[in-house]
Amino acid sequence: MQAPLGATRIRASGPPRVVIVGAGFAGLTAARALARAPVEVTLIDKRNYHLFQPLLYQVATAALSPAEIAAPIRAIVRRQKNVRVMLGKVDGIDTERQLVRSDAGDVPYDYLILATGARHAYFGRDEWEAFAPGLKKIEDATEIRTRILLAFERAELESDAARQAALLTFVIVGGGPTGVELAGAITELGRMALAADFRRIDPRRTRVVLVEAGPRLLPAFPESLSEIARRALVKLGVEVRLGKPVGVCDADGVVIDGERLAARTVVWAAGVAASPAGKWLRTNVDRAGRVKVAPDLSVSGHADVFAVGDTALVPGPDRAPVPGIAPAAKQQGKYVAGVIAARVAGRTAPAPFRYRHAGNLATIGRRAAVIDFNGFKLSGFVAWLLWGAAHIYFLIGFRNRLVVLLSWLWAYVTFKRGVRLITGREA
Amino acid sequence: MQAPLGATRIRASGPPRVVIVGAGFAGLTAARALARAPVEVTLIDKRNYHLFQPLLYQVATAALSPAEIAAPIRAIVRRQKNVRVMLGKVDGIDTERQLVRSDAGDVPYDYLILATGARHAYFGRDEWEAFAPGLKKIEDATEIRTRILLAFERAELESDAARQAALLTFVIVGGGPTGVELAGAITELGRMALAADFRRIDPRRTRVVLVEAGPRLLPAFPESLSEIARRALVKLGVEVRLGKPVGVCDADGVVIDGERLAARTVVWAAGVAASPAGKWLRTNVDRAGRVKVAPDLSVSGHADVFAVGDTALVPGPDRAPVPGIAPAAKQQGKYVAGVIAARVAGRTAPAPFRYRHAGNLATIGRRAAVIDFNGFKLSGFVAWLLWGAAHIYFLIGFRNRLVVLLSWLWAYVTFKRGVRLITGREA
Repeated sequence: MQAPLGATRIRASGPPRVVIVGAGFAGLTAARALARAPVEVTLIDKRNYHLFQPLLYQVATAALSPAEIAAPIRAIVRRQKNVRVMLGKVDGIDTERQLVRSDAGDVPYDYLILATGARHAYFGRDEWEAFAPGLKKIEDATEIRTRILLAFERAELESDAARQAALLTFVIVGGGPTGVELAGAITELGRMALAADFRRIDPRRTRVVLVEAGPRLLPAFPESLSEIARRALVKLGVEVRLGKPVGVCDADGVVIDGERLAARTVVWAAGVAASPAGKWLRTNVDRAGRVKVAPDLSVSGHADVFAVGDTALVPGPDRAPVPGIAPAAKQQGKYVAGVIAARVAGRTAPAPFRYRHAGNLATIGRRAAVIDFNGFKLSGFVAWLLWGAAHIYFLIGFRNRLVVLLSWLWAYVTFKRGVRLITGREA
Repeated sequence: MQAPLGATRIRASGPPRVVIVGAGFAGLTAARALARAPVEVTLIDKRNYHLFQPLLYQVATAALSPAEIAAPIRAIVRRQKNVRVMLGKVDGIDTERQLVRSDAGDVPYDYLILATGARHAYFGRDEWEAFAPGLKKIEDATEIRTRILLAFERAELESDAARQAALLTFVIVGGGPTGVELAGAITELGRMALAADFRRIDPRRTRVVLVEAGPRLLPAFPESLSEIARRALVKLGVEVRLGKPVGVCDADGVVIDGERLAARTVVWAAGVAASPAGKWLRTNVDRAGRVKVAPDLSVSGHADVFAVGDTALVPGPDRAPVPGIAPAAKQQGKYVAGVIAARVAGRTAPAPFRYRHAGNLATIGRRAAVIDFNGFKLSGFVAWLLWGAAHIYFLIGFRNRLVVLLSWLWAYVTFKRGVRLITGREA
C-alpha cells in the first residue's frame, strides 16, 4: 500500500535509513552533510570511486592518470561512522515496499536520494556511439586516449596522403565546456607534446574541428565570453564550426551541412541524458530523462524520495533548469540532507531549494580560460590560473591535489604529456 | 637463398638497417647504445610504451598508476635521430629475404635484434589462466587490482561465513621476487590501507598464502636470504607453503598437496615462457621457449639475427642460464649493439658476451627487503631503502621518478593506497 502523499513511513526501531544512490558530487555531498544527523546512511554506487568529472578530458588527452581524478568512496567517508558504502548496480526501486533493488541485494530505505547522474546521449542516433564515443566514465576517457594516440601511430605508418590526413583530423561534436576543453587539449597534444616524436608525420599538422549546432560556443556563458573562447581556439589552430548540426557520423568521419569531413577520430561532447532513475520510479521526466521534482527536490507523489544533480530537473531562479555542473549538484545534495535532517528531528522543513549560480569556467589550452563569476568576466592567463586553482581546490584528497599540481607544473614547464598509454587493445 | 653462416648481406646503398623487435629493457638499451653508430634503427613494439616491469606488482596492488611505470617509447628516443619507432605486432620473420613481418607492414633488416620478452606460463595447464592471471602487462596488473579490490567489496556484502572467508583469501603461486612482493603488498593492503574502510568485514583478517613448489623462496638468492625473506613474510602475516606444487586451480581456489584451499583470488607468479621468437626462426629453443644463442648472442645459423633478454637462453659464468632480470637484459642489449657497431665499422668482433651479476633484490612489505650484491648480503630497513633508491634511479623519465617518489612517500606516511580503482567492468 502506497503511503499517502507527504507522509513518510519510518521503521519502528533504529535510526531512520537514508539510502543514497550514486556517489557523484550530489550524492557524496548529501552523505557528508548527514554526518551529524541521527540516521543510518547507505551510499550505493556501481563504481568504487568518486570521479572528478570536470578533469576527465585531461585523462582523455594523456595529461592525467585516472587515479589522479578518482578517489575511493570508502576512503572519503572512512571516518563518518553513520555511512555504509555498498558497491552495487541499482536496477529498480520498489516505492511501495521502500526497497532499492540492486545486484548486491535489496536495500530498505526510509528516505531515498537518487543521485545517479547522466550519460551522454545521441539524440536518437545511438548507432553513432561506436564511431563517436562520449566522455562520462574513466573507461570512456582511456578509450578516447587510446583512439587519439593510435591515430597518430597509424598516420606515421600510412603512405596514402588522404588516409593520413583523415587520421590526423579530430572532430569534436559539441561546443560546451567539455568540447571546448577537448579541442584545445588535442590541438596542444599535437602541436607540442607529440611534435618532435614522429619521423614521417608532423603532428603539428593535426587538424581539430569543433562542431556546435547552436549559434555560439559555451551557450551557458555570457555571449562576450563565447566570442573570446572562439577567438582563443581559432588562434590555437582549432576550426570552429557554429550553427551546423552533424548530419551523419560513421567510420569515415562526419557530414556537416552536406559537407563530408574525413576524420578517423570523432569525440561526442554534445548531449546528455539522465540515468534511468525516472524509469525506476515511473514518474514524469523531461525529454532528457530528468525527473521533475517539487520545490523541496522530492519526487512528486513520493515525499520520501528525492532526486538531485543531473538526475533532477530543477528550475533555476531565471526559470531555466539549473545547469548540470558540480556546484549545482553539491548545493542540491546539501539541501536534501537538510530536508531529511529536519524531518527526522521533527523541525520545520527548510525553505524551497534555491540555486545560487557561482559562475562558469572553461579552459582553452595551456594559457587561457574564460570565467564568469556572476557577471564578473575574466579571460586569458589570469583566468587560466584561477581555473587551475579552483580545480585543484575542489579535487578530493590531499594526494590527488598534490599529484595533479605536480603533473600540471611538469606539463607546463616541459610541454610534455605524462600519460601517453595505448591500453586495452589485444596485443 | 640463405646467406652462408657468418656472412651478413648488407644492402648496397644507405646505412645498414638494424631492426629491434621489443622495447623492453634489452631492446631499448640496444637502440640507445646504437645512437652514435652509422645505422638506421627501427624499434618495433606492439605497445607504445616501455614498461618498468619490476614495479608492475605495485600497480596490481593499487600503489602506483600504470603511467607511473610506463614511458612512451617515442618520448624516450625523441632526440636520437637514427631511431624510428613503429607500433606493430610482429608475427613472423623471413630470414631468407631479411624481412620482419608485422601487422604494420614488412620491415627489411640487415641486422635483427629479437628482444621480445616473456609471457607467464602454466606448465601445460593453460586452462588455469582464467582463474589465476599472471602479471606481465599493464592490463594484467589492472585486472589483478580489480580482482583484489572486488574481493573485499564482495566480502563486505557476503553473509555466508565460508564464502566470505574464501573472498578474503588470496593465493599467490610462485615464490620468486614477484610472488614475494605481491604477497607482502596484498597483506599490507588489507592490514593497513583498507583496515578502517569497511563496516562488516575486518580487512585485517585477510589471509594471504604464498605457495612455492621448490624448497625455498627466492631460489636465485643465497639460502640465508631466502630464510630471512620467509621469516619476514610470516611475521607480516603471510602463510608460506614450500615444497608443494599446486595440483588443481579452479574458480573455488587451489588444491595443494591434496588439501583444498578455498580462495576467490589466485595470482600466478610461477612460470615464464619466452615469446614466440624461436618459432618465427624455426630454431632451437629450450623447454621455456628461449632461443639458443652463440657466444656473441647471434642465433645459430643466422649471423645477422640476435636474441637478447628473456627471449634468449644465455649461459652464465656458472653455466646456469643468465637470469631473466632487467640488468641482465640491459647488458645483453648493450653488448649486441657493440657487436653490430663493430661489424658495421669493420672492426674486430668484441669478446664473447659475459654476464656480470650485480645482485638480487626483493622487497617484503613497507619496511623490509633482502639484497644480495655479489655475496654482500643485506636485509631489513636499510635494504628496503636501498631497494627503493635503486628502483627510483632506474625508472625512466624525470617525471616518473618524481611522481613515484611522491606516491611512495605519501603511502609510507599515511599507510594509504592511492590507486584503488575497480575499472574495466561493465557497470
